[in-house]
Amino acid sequence: MPDRSQTDLLERRRRVLPESYRTFYDAPLDIESAAGVWITADGGRRYLDAYNNVPVIGHSNPLVREAVAAELARSNAHTRYLDARVVEYAEGLLAHFAAPLDRVVFTCSGSEANDLALQVARSGTGRHGVIVTANAYHGTTASIAEISPSLRPDPPAFVERVALPTGPDNRAAQFALEVERAVAALADRGHAPAAFIVDTALTSDGILGSTDWLARGAAVARAHDALIIADEVQAGFCRLGRWWGYELHRLEPDLVTLGKPMGNGLPIGGLVGRRDLLDEFGRTQRYFNTFAGTPATIAAANVVLHELERQDAAARVERLGERFRSALRDRLAPMVEPDRVSGAGLMTGIDLAASAPDGTAFTARTVNLLRERGVLLSSTGADASTLKIRPPLVIGEDELDLLVTTIADALRAALAERGES
Amino acid sequence: MPDRSQTDLLERRRRVLPESYRTFYDAPLDIESAAGVWITADGGRRYLDAYNNVPVIGHSNPLVREAVAAELARSNAHTRYLDARVVEYAEGLLAHFAAPLDRVVFTCSGSEANDLALQVARSGTGRHGVIVTANAYHGTTASIAEISPSLRPDPPAFVERVALPTGPDNRAAQFALEVERAVAALADRGHAPAAFIVDTALTSDGILGSTDWLARGAAVARAHDALIIADEVQAGFCRLGRWWGYELHRLEPDLVTLGKPMGNGLPIGGLVGRRDLLDEFGRTQRYFNTFAGTPATIAAANVVLHELERQDAAARVERLGERFRSALRDRLAPMVEPDRVSGAGLMTGIDLAASAPDGTAFTARTVNLLRERGVLLSSTGADASTLKIRPPLVIGEDELDLLVTTIADALRAALAERGES
Repeated sequence: MPDRSQTDLLERRRRVLPESYRTFYDAPLDIESAAGVWITADGGRRYLDAYNNVPVIGHSNPLVREAVAAELARSNAHTRYLDARVVEYAEGLLAHFAAPLDRVVFTCSGSEANDLALQVARSGTGRHGVIVTANAYHGTTASIAEISPSLRPDPPAFVERVALPTGPDNRAAQFALEVERAVAALADRGHAPAAFIVDTALTSDGILGSTDWLARGAAVARAHDALIIADEVQAGFCRLGRWWGYELHRLEPDLVTLGKPMGNGLPIGGLVGRRDLLDEFGRTQRYFNTFAGTPATIAAANVVLHELERQDAAARVERLGERFRSALRDRLAPMVEPDRVSGAGLMTGIDLAASAPDGTAFTARTVNLLRERGVLLSSTGADASTLKIRPPLVIGEDELDLLVTTIADALRAALAERGES
Repeated sequence: MPDRSQTDLLERRRRVLPESYRTFYDAPLDIESAAGVWITADGGRRYLDAYNNVPVIGHSNPLVREAVAAELARSNAHTRYLDARVVEYAEGLLAHFAAPLDRVVFTCSGSEANDLALQVARSGTGRHGVIVTANAYHGTTASIAEISPSLRPDPPAFVERVALPTGPDNRAAQFALEVERAVAALADRGHAPAAFIVDTALTSDGILGSTDWLARGAAVARAHDALIIADEVQAGFCRLGRWWGYELHRLEPDLVTLGKPMGNGLPIGGLVGRRDLLDEFGRTQRYFNTFAGTPATIAAANVVLHELERQDAAARVERLGERFRSALRDRLAPMVEPDRVSGAGLMTGIDLAASAPDGTAFTARTVNLLRERGVLLSSTGADASTLKIRPPLVIGEDELDLLVTTIADALRAALAERGES
């Protein structure tokens, strides 16, 4: 339960912020400070942050602070002026993409990046339809909320959801057929697909890790002249043990969207894509984003890029992630079947739907028991019955071991409560 | 013309940023540093910045830098955690609004704020239509570009543009009739208005200053059950000599959107509105914006708010603006008729459409001649034939006098060129 001063602050908060502002956990966390993968809250208690995917090179990273402060002391104007810094960052970022992905547009958020990607796809194809995964989440602007079934379960006629393949066999063939069905369903409603868009971490669909079927479905969409948008807002910047999640699935996107970790907490996102598409859009539609690609946010992004390179983060994250999931599978048996632990790199899901009669409530309870035990994480999936684990990428082996132990302990406690009730 | 190193950098820029990235001026400005209202560029030359409305309390404001750096050293997580700082800022901001405007949602940009306002208006009214001013600009997301005729001159069927009244007499009656016509035109196409949205500085419509007709048109829209959205992204935070531009027009908005100056360059925007509307939206639609209202951006916004209060900025800006436009009218006669100088506070337009046969080219030439003379500004209006003057609000009387002198000098030079050609 929240204590007295928390109750007062919550009440003041309710008087100024509307109901969309929800807090995590039964007792909300009042953060005092944060550094690396540790958050200090609730009067000095330390929590292991296994949830926040924004501070990818660590909370309160001093290099980010210094780089941002330097630009705030120098100049922080916009991209209508010439600035070597934004050009150099764009060059450094694009060095991590292969042809034909050779241009970038900066935005203020992942939502703005996906919104712009969809504008480019629709303008480039002259079509309005979109194919999305069953429980996709791509952001909060009007046009992106519309194609996010996890926000709007009844999407408009120009959106068709594809079910993800189940069962061990023939997944690629199953998914290819499903995308064919989606194209036909759109056609029945008078629409053709401008794009097939996918969060390559499949976060809100339950965190699925590497697939051998996603590329087959994308190929079907492309055969019907849809563009492929890889939403890397969650997956990008080494989260999945690759620089970009689409590499894991051997997808070949036309447009790639970036966000959350890009500036380690400074608001910056981006759209990387084919020059022909982005130039054509730039010629026919005016687009200028005041806060996007300003020196201060670019400085933060530049630190993130170079730190990930210096740490050889993709390889390190892949190695740590494999070791982590292997340890989880060992330690959670028999409470959780091994194949319920999924993911890639440092994005891991633990599907608890089968662990108790009410998977959703059981998962929420487990999340709160973890908070009591000093570990912060949350849930995802269509029924919110999958533990969502995505710590800052600077987490170490000892901290991952602590995470495994604490998850096992919390799960045992949650199951014991069920046994008693 | 750009010099050699500029040419190299421009070429590198073209290889990474697509064609939407345009630069100001015939010779782009490469900013080295900026402080207060002065920008240093092009190898040490100082320019008076009479254009940038984002660094409202001055370029490189040290209080902003210190406040942001402090949060980047402490913690910069999001609003799913409890944080007294965001609550205190929300309280301080809302103290500048009267009932029933008593809730705020934070966003990353003015575009996101307008996009959200439109989602709230449509969700609250169950309607889709929008009434906009003739050459409105409200931002860059798909749903907002659609209602911005300055970006998309042929808006969709659910958007109706209203012409602004002309002539000295009966403007309020004329505009009321025009809004009635717009409602009827929407009805003919099967739409009802969810909202009448207006940039209260009327920036892209030519910068019109105070009006006695806007409120009459809004009353008509409201009589047809449309909500009133005041877009204060340009006008807000004392720009027009009032805290909010809608006060100048005696508008009573249901929703107010904030952006550009809010964080002095840190990406933050906001939607202030009626509790019933925002709570209902929060209950029926999930909305969480990762980067919006983080401690670092809130810290910047908090400095802006308190500096504007400490400087009594609204009154100061009103006084300086009146003096400035009066001096302009004196010094520009007979090159420019007095009634071609318009605006409120420190947002001023000088309509040059009648000053030369090709007003658009003449205005562009004048802007470049001003840059040669060390003054930065730009153009606006449907034909880009209005000089757009909106310096940081910390500009002083001497600097405004210099601005008047330099504008007069550049205009004389532009007219002399015309005489010679």
